Amino acid sequence: MTATLLRELRQALGEEAVLTDPGATEGYSGDMMPLVPRGRPLAVVFPVDTVQVRACVRACAGAGVPIVPRGAGSGLTGAANAVDGCVALVTTRMNRILELDPDNRLAVVQPGVVNLDLRKAAARHNLFYPPDPSSLEWCTLGGNLATNAGGLCCGKYGTTADFVLGLEVVLADGSVLRTGRRTVKGVAGYDLTRLFVGSEGTLGVISQATFALTPLPAAPGTLIASFDAVEQAGDAVIRVVREGIVPSLMEIMDATSLRASAAYLDSDLGRAGRQVLLLCQSDSGGRAADHELAAMARLCQEAGAAFTHTTRDPAEGDLLLRARRVSLTALEAQGAVMTEDVAVPRTRIAELIVGCEKIGADAGLTVAVVGHAGDGNMHPTVLYDRTSSEEFRRACEAFDAILALGLSLGGTVTGEHGIGRLKQQWLERELGSVSLRVHRQLKAVLDPGSLFNPGAVFTPAEARHGAP
Amino acid sequence: MTATLLRELRQALGEEAVLTDPGATEGYSGDMMPLVPRGRPLAVVFPVDTVQVRACVRACAGAGVPIVPRGAGSGLTGAANAVDGCVALVTTRMNRILELDPDNRLAVVQPGVVNLDLRKAAARHNLFYPPDPSSLEWCTLGGNLATNAGGLCCGKYGTTADFVLGLEVVLADGSVLRTGRRTVKGVAGYDLTRLFVGSEGTLGVISQATFALTPLPAAPGTLIASFDAVEQAGDAVIRVVREGIVPSLMEIMDATSLRASAAYLDSDLGRAGRQVLLLCQSDSGGRAADHELAAMARLCQEAGAAFTHTTRDPAEGDLLLRARRVSLTALEAQGAVMTEDVAVPRTRIAELIVGCEKIGADAGLTVAVVGHAGDGNMHPTVLYDRTSSEEFRRACEAFDAILALGLSLGGTVTGEHGIGRLKQQWLERELGSVSLRVHRQLKAVLDPGSLFNPGAVFTPAEARHGAP
Repeated sequence: MTATLLRELRQALGEEAVLTDPGATEGYSGDMMPLVPRGRPLAVVFPVDTVQVRACVRACAGAGVPIVPRGAGSGLTGAANAVDGCVALVTTRMNRILELDPDNRLAVVQPGVVNLDLRKAAARHNLFYPPDPSSLEWCTLGGNLATNAGGLCCGKYGTTADFVLGLEVVLADGSVLRTGRRTVKGVAGYDLTRLFVGSEGTLGVISQATFALTPLPAAPGTLIASFDAVEQAGDAVIRVVREGIVPSLMEIMDATSLRASAAYLDSDLGRAGRQVLLLCQSDSGGRAADHELAAMARLCQEAGAAFTHTTRDPAEGDLLLRARRVSLTALEAQGAVMTEDVAVPRTRIAELIVGCEKIGADAGLTVAVVGHAGDGNMHPTVLYDRTSSEEFRRACEAFDAILALGLSLGGTVTGEHGIGRLKQQWLERELGSVSLRVHRQLKAVLDPGSLFNPGAVFTPAEARHGAP
Repeated sequence: MTATLLRELRQALGEEAVLTDPGATEGYSGDMMPLVPRGRPLAVVFPVDTVQVRACVRACAGAGVPIVPRGAGSGLTGAANAVDGCVALVTTRMNRILELDPDNRLAVVQPGVVNLDLRKAAARHNLFYPPDPSSLEWCTLGGNLATNAGGLCCGKYGTTADFVLGLEVVLADGSVLRTGRRTVKGVAGYDLTRLFVGSEGTLGVISQATFALTPLPAAPGTLIASFDAVEQAGDAVIRVVREGIVPSLMEIMDATSLRASAAYLDSDLGRAGRQVLLLCQSDSGGRAADHELAAMARLCQEAGAAFTHTTRDPAEGDLLLRARRVSLTALEAQGAVMTEDVAVPRTRIAELIVGCEKIGADAGLTVAVVGHAGDGNMHPTVLYDRTSSEEFRRACEAFDAILALGLSLGGTVTGEHGIGRLKQQWLERELGSVSLRVHRQLKAVLDPGSLFNPGAVFTPAEARHGAP
């Protein structure tokens, strides 16, 4: 059976596009989240177009072998982790931008196109593809679609889902579904596009996507403000929202993460004390940016900022943002990390950060928090000693306590990373049993054989057909 | 059986909330689209909260009596039209704004809240709810959600779907599904919110919604430009898009609709000739608005505008927009009308308008076109003599020819009104047979007894469970 499947795959894709050697396949068995166990794939396949994706789906469906679709593997939840005996379907060779139509501000791409490549192609036409996950230099748009990836731009521009006009998806029976449209507006039928975006590879394989683009904004001006207390920084965020300002970027770093970045960069930024940093940008250009930056500086001062600094020089802005950009790397330099992804209402950011400090103290561990203050999506990071199983256990407890705290503040357990194989037990807790039942019904009707990414997003259970 | 159902409904909702007298129920048997036949409801019910909606759903499900959910009935596709023997579930008494949280820029509402009431409530906090269908003074947010309603704002702000954070939905078995979140971002599980938005009442009854709000923009400045040829106006739209400008409003009126409005308003605007009018606004405020309006005026002139006029006076802007706002009323003053809703890529607007003129000429009828040039959503309107069945037949043929033209230009048969009971036969033609099959599968799994709005969106067919 297995031999037949491998023969079919090699026939359809070519010898070199089907890997079975464990040394070679292991590199495609997981994503960037070390906490989730990885299975051993039977094979790793590299289709180049929709025809080859269909051939893989039909062959695997026929053999009863599950498919785990994946892009570059930059995910942080194990959503792209192999299950034992699966076929890992890698989209990285489907990396062509098929069309870029500047007059209709849209692009049609294969799923393996790297995020940065679309950004660059768009910029050549003075257009902008906003979603900017930290891995934008190497993550693929297919993975961005599967997880509805976010980034630093979301408070002003939204997430990946907000830029998808339509999809082409290969379904479990090998048929090709086309969703959405090429027009700005369109309401013909159910929104199947959004059903597949964020479904983490559990409902089909996205083989093509049409993205809306926006005009390229002005180069950003930057404001940094430091505060002696988390509550002051949280208050500044509330004041900016209340003033009606929509910054193109607003990031927060607590004292712990700031100290780690300062040590890593050998900078004096925040190394000394308990400062909390707020980094804000405006890409509105001209006097509008002047106005927004000045207003944000004033609001930060009114909230009690100890220090503010504003620059319109993009290079200086990049330098100021470095502390934020290296924060995870800087923390990893201090030990093993578990990175969280809770999102809370923007008014509850300070409570979340203070709560994380307490959770860390109770666990005898360091918890550092950086996050997207503009949209409330926080990334608390638990530091622990990899060699101590006891400390690992406490880190896992702290990780769960942070999720519970996020929910108790009216938030979600995942703002942009997804559920994957990391937080399945939290899905029902956040969404309720009726929602979980509907999830299982949709999965059962679209993928009755559980061909696609089994075990991701929700735990396997007998899905009931028919009456809800 | 019927008597039992009516007794249960009266018990749950109270005597005065259950109408059965045909004289009273007829007013709730249709929407604003006269072309679609109306059935006779068994009863019309007016629940006031989720508990009463659940009681209605359970009682009707038990009796095997279908429910047609409806708001104010401002729709244009017959989606809210009764089917014989149904219960029309009217949400207009569920009209409370439950919460308005300015610091998190969100509102929680019941579905019967009138669009304008949310706009006004938001404005009191310097916040803005952008979606602005023409019926905004009386249409309900529940109806807006069911159809994913648009308006004049969409080129810059998007449609209803773009402002929904979460929903509460009563499902066919009476259980209550909560979707989405209160945070700006969140990716826990499938996007069930968007599955229900635009589903035209076929999957459940929306009993509550959480909307995101945006900062209130500046009062708009206005530009009008008239052109001797449709192609020039279409070229101006392309130039504005290419320049990277996102006007807060950009409407187009062809010569026929302009003459009708001029006659109706007794104005000399365009009455004489073949002028095509472009109306543009910027709500960016201050110098940014000055810049955008000046750039759009220049681009219109470069495209060959015979005349341009710009004003920053909002009152004068409203006056200039009157010709657009009265256009459908002005056309209705000339005879019976069929209003279309095709959307095309913004580069194809002129082709659509010229094509509509030809379709009208071939049919011996007048076709007037107004539309949202900023997003390509056009509303060609076929005029005909109500007393002539032969002319009605030709009007229907012209109506279909316009839909076919819209599709042939890469467009959709509906930009914002929906499919309803008017365009069901066009759904498969636009989306394909795989998509239609998926629609039927989703309907079958979420509403296996076809309780909700049977016959809307797609034609009834044996839905297959299980394997797709």
